[in-house]
Amino acid sequence: MFGMLGKFRSLPGQRDALVALLLECTADMPGCLSYVVALDPADADAIWVTEAWTDEASHAASLAIPAVKQAIAKAMPLIAGVDMHQKTMPVGGYGLAG
Amino acid sequence: MFGMLGKFRSLPGQRDALVALLLECTADMPGCLSYVVALDPADADAIWVTEAWTDEASHAASLAIPAVKQAIAKAMPLIAGVDMHQKTMPVGGYGLAG
Repeated sequence: MFGMLGKFRSLPGQRDALVALLLECTADMPGCLSYVVALDPADADAIWVTEAWTDEASHAASLAIPAVKQAIAKAMPLIAGVDMHQKTMPVGGYGLAG
Repeated sequence: MFGMLGKFRSLPGQRDALVALLLECTADMPGCLSYVVALDPADADAIWVTEAWTDEASHAASLAIPAVKQAIAKAMPLIAGVDMHQKTMPVGGYGLAG
């Protein structure tokens, strides 16, 4: 499996709008096993996204899905920065769809 | 929802054993919506665990489950350190059981 884990910041006051965009198309991404969007309780602009995919190719393919491309295009202007971006190799757990 | 995200290290050569212990009882934890164990591709001893729970109380209660307590007791001696531990507030996504 292929995974990613990242923390990024919205522009001030735009976190909810950014979260809504991130959640817009999470149900229709082939090969996606887990995609969780979370707020940072200690930072009003910070968002954590943790992902698990069957493989890196399915993640890459997801970026070409029209609905995902549209959501990303709308989200980019609301992102102030990326604090952390980490690739992982999920090996198991609970809540991994598929 | 309540979430946690952490990176910790096994003793050298003990990562697989530690991962096996972490995965031992992930299916039977009431209130657990997601529990994903992943390897760090760039560090042979590092493990990432990302969790989502209905609430902080259900996470705390899980630590009292006999099978979880036993797994933790076996895992502790294999842990060399905790590099990162972050509480989060999951707000949605895909692969959140329950």
